[in-house]
Formats: sequence, C-alpha cells, structure tokens
Amino acid sequence: MGQYVFGVDIGGTTVKLGLFNKAAELLDKWEIPTVKENGGEQILPDVAKSILKKMEEKGIAKSDIIGIGVGAPGAVDEEGTMVGGAVNLGWGVLNIPQILREYLDVPVKAANDANVAALGEMWQGGGKGHRNMVAVTLGTGVGGGIIVEGKILTGATGAGGEIGHIHMEDNETELCGCKKKGCLEQYASATGIVRLAKRRLAEDDKPSCLREGEISAKTVFDGVKAGDEVAIEIAERFGNYLGKGLAMVACTVNPEVFVIGGGVSKAGEILLSFIKPSFEKYVFSPCKKVEFALAKLGNDAGIYGAAALVI
Amino acid sequence: MGQYVFGVDIGGTTVKLGLFNKAAELLDKWEIPTVKENGGEQILPDVAKSILKKMEEKGIAKSDIIGIGVGAPGAVDEEGTMVGGAVNLGWGVLNIPQILREYLDVPVKAANDANVAALGEMWQGGGKGHRNMVAVTLGTGVGGGIIVEGKILTGATGAGGEIGHIHMEDNETELCGCKKKGCLEQYASATGIVRLAKRRLAEDDKPSCLREGEISAKTVFDGVKAGDEVAIEIAERFGNYLGKGLAMVACTVNPEVFVIGGGVSKAGEILLSFIKPSFEKYVFSPCKKVEFALAKLGNDAGIYGAAALVI
Repeated sequence: MGQYVFGVDIGGTTVKLGLFNKAAELLDKWEIPTVKENGGEQILPDVAKSILKKMEEKGIAKSDIIGIGVGAPGAVDEEGTMVGGAVNLGWGVLNIPQILREYLDVPVKAANDANVAALGEMWQGGGKGHRNMVAVTLGTGVGGGIIVEGKILTGATGAGGEIGHIHMEDNETELCGCKKKGCLEQYASATGIVRLAKRRLAEDDKPSCLREGEISAKTVFDGVKAGDEVAIEIAERFGNYLGKGLAMVACTVNPEVFVIGGGVSKAGEILLSFIKPSFEKYVFSPCKKVEFALAKLGNDAGIYGAAALVI
Repeated sequence: MGQYVFGVDIGGTTVKLGLFNKAAELLDKWEIPTVKENGGEQILPDVAKSILKKMEEKGIAKSDIIGIGVGAPGAVDEEGTMVGGAVNLGWGVLNIPQILREYLDVPVKAANDANVAALGEMWQGGGKGHRNMVAVTLGTGVGGGIIVEGKILTGATGAGGEIGHIHMEDNETELCGCKKKGCLEQYASATGIVRLAKRRLAEDDKPSCLREGEISAKTVFDGVKAGDEVAIEIAERFGNYLGKGLAMVACTVNPEVFVIGGGVSKAGEILLSFIKPSFEKYVFSPCKKVEFALAKLGNDAGIYGAAALVI
C-alpha cells in the first residue's frame, strides 16, 4: 500500500520536485537544473535519478510509492504523450510515463503544466473545496486551466482553457503574440496592463505617478492603492476586459470559482474589486454565483497539481 | 444481463419515449401527453406506467432492462434532482430517479434536456465518433450542450453550455430575454436573424425578396439560396456573430466538433459556410482544427441522449 507521491513540474530553467504523503502534505521540495542540450534527452533521466536519490535518502521503497505526477510545458494527451513536443525543452514528441518507467516502474501520469497548476490550486490552494474551477494566470500572457468535476479539461488538441486568446476587441490595431488582434491577453496580462497604461497616459496630460519611471502592472496597482486617478482608470479598463472575458467563460463552463494567479495577482484582493463589477455586468445570471479567489500556492502549484494527478 | 434501455425526453407538451437495445438501436418510439395539472405530479407516474405497458407489450422483464435515462427541462444535478424545479412542467424541486424507482426498480439517470440532446447527437448523430463536442441549438433562442471526454459538462449550477448568453456586442440597445444586452442569442437565434434582417432592410432601399411577406430565418436562407444580395448580407452578419462566439467557446473547451441543430439548421450545409470564415478569423490557432457538422437526430436527439446516459 503506497504512502508517498512525487510531484514534478518541468520548466525551461529548472525542474521542481516535491515529495507528498497521501494526505496531500508537502514533505520535501527541491529543484534540479533543466538540461536542454541534445533535444533535452537528459531531462527525464535526471528527474528519475533525482527521485531515486531522494528515495534512498528518505528510506522510501518502491512499494511505498503511489505514483509520480508530471507537469510539462506543452500539449499532453491522456496517455502522457507530448503530442507537439515542447519547444522550451528541446523535446520532440515523446511519452513521459514510458521514459520515467524505464528507471522506476511505478504509475506515472503527465499533463500540461498550466493545467496541472490549476489542479494544484484546486487541490490545496485558492480553489480548495471546489470541483469545478477556472484558474486564470495573469503573467506575461494570460493562461488558463479548467477543472470539471475534479478533472482537467484537456480538450481535443490539449488547448482547453486557452482563455487568453478569447477575442475581446474588434478595434484593436496591434497584433497579439498569436497573430490575431484583440485577444484578452492584450489587455489583461502584465504586458497588456502596460499597454493600457501607455494608451491612457497618451490621451491627455492629467497628472499621475505613472508619468515618471518605468510602467509595470505593479506600478499601476501601487498607484491604485495610493489613490492615483489615472492608475484607477487603467485598472478599470483592465478589469472591464477581464471581467467581461470571464463572464464569457462562465457562460460556457459554469465554474464554482475563478482562481486568479500569476505575477499580476500579487496586487492582492484589490485586483478582484476591478474584475467583479464587469463580470456581474456581463454574466448570464444562472452562472453568476461564482467565487473569485487569489491563487495561494505560487510556484508550488505545479508540484501540488502534479501530485494530485496520481492521488 | 440487461438488454434494453429506455430513453425519456420530457417536454412541456409531450413526453417522448424510446426503447433501445444495447447496440444503441432505436427499436420503438412513442409519445404521451405531458399532464401539467397539480404541479405536474402525474408526469413521472405516467412515464413509469407507459414504460411498464411497453414492457408488457414486448414481453420485456425487469431483469432485461439496463436502465432508464431521462432528459428534463431545467437544471439537474448529478443525483438527478431538479435543483430549481421545472417551470414548464409545474415542478418544484424533485428527484427524478427516486420517483421513477417507486414504480420500476431499475437504474435511472437524469440530466438537463439540452445537454441530453447534445449527448444524443454525439452518440448516434452529427457528432458520432467524437468525445469532445459542443452542440449548438439555433431555435427561438441559442442553446448549447458541451460534452467533455464523453460526459456532459453540467457546471456548478447546471448552466454549463449556456453559450447563447455570451456577451457579443457592446452597442446593442435592445434587451435579451435574460435582461442583458448584446447576447449571442440576439443575433444567432431564429428571432435574432429576423432582427438582423429588419435592421438591414431599414438601412436602405436595396431590392430584396425579403421586402415582401413575413421574414423568418427560413425566408432569409431561402433568399441566400436564390442569390438575394441583401439576404446574403444578413446571413454574413449572422455568421460573423456566431463564428466569433464559437471561436470564444473553442478557446475555452477546445472541442473536436461543433454540431449545429435547431430550426435554423434546416437551412442545411449553406449555414456552415457563413459560420466558418468568421470562426477561422477569430479562433486561437491551436483550437482551429474543429469540424462543423449539422445535427442529424432532430426531435429524437433527446431520447437517444437519455438512453446514452445509462449505457
């Protein structure tokens, strides 16, 4: 009867690993570098060796292990195959469980890292206690992860929850990274907020703390907290786009909770106060009853969610 | 070992019933009136009696029955409880399996009728062969049903797939039935197409077959088929809204196929030719690979899907 689970979150720079007991408690966490040379062929062997070393260190036998969960940056199918490879890692198409099992014959499951992080937030983070959740990551871009009845919504091509590319604005003139115009990501990501700020500042000469120094999502929300009127207008525009976008998502998947994470979410609860009014304005009323929560696990969401894949 | 399944689709006027074998073949179908008096208290007993009568007629024993599936017009939770009752039937909160089992002790499952119809289309209709599907019903309103990995996406409050109320248009002046403005349903339903047609016709005096007689979704698409330029413009506006809305849905749930049904879909394949260009314009490219198909089962989708609930 297994007692332990390993959660593995493979990133472009480091691989994060966590050892959990079956009560979902994080007993230990550590990192190893991501060696991308030669098509990233060492990454999974390095993961396996690191786990074997930890087992020796802790006196854990193979029979004590429930399984290993893995989050990886790319589309992963139900069998754990990276269907399109992983550009960030140098990987072509490969099957994660198959490779890890060459080193350690225990159950292995793998899924997309953003979806895995969403699962982690539901399991032990901002969405704890819920089974229908949408995780929204406001970072350089806008990512999403959708959990339905406790399971990741992977989608036909592994692109479920790509809410950052919902079309929001017909009048946009600049291109999104995806080559379309008017995606949610162009207004609600960290870089999107900077764009909104620059546009607002160019409209007139109204004094603002944002007119000096570099503009970032942080300086905008610091300005909001300091009562800067221009910063508040920018936050309102951001919130109008994001609340409207999440209302569209709510009509589709009808979640119990939105969990907002990523760098922009460091602004704290005040962020939610700009999203909710717009959400309520646009949402279909049977889908209105939804909580907004901040993500809690930060960079550990990936290892938690990876562990949740096998528990 | 069970051989037969009953599929039951409860509507406001009639209850449709179907007898299927376990190979998913429809062996018999019939209807009974929906008796709404006294809070609809006779509806489920009438269903049970009709099934018992059919069993007697066909010589089917209780042990031959795999189960009964039921679609009902309202939000239904995982246990088969109508959580908000059903206004159309006069029902308050009640549990469908519990009541039917008083008459016939076999497995019973129930779900929302639109979602059940979607499941039917996936099982034996336009979505056959797929496991990730969005059904879009273009009738008086715009309904939707989402199937993920072969299962209905019910949502937190039974409102999963309510894509007709995705906000599409900031400049709308008229109210949708839901009391918001600018919902997809205001442009893509049968009544929405009539609205678009009247607006277009009021813009100028360009000759059109639509200037005589009553306008309906049918007369618009008949006009399109006859090469009427104004009708084509109206269909383009309709397609622009619907394609854009479905692109938003595709970013969220990444389906393999959209199955388009309801009265408007009687226009046939030509309908799809107005939806696809807009869909492709707005969709995130990893979600682009999706089929568009017409619904095939018509009014039988409900009994097929109800049967699929228990097979």
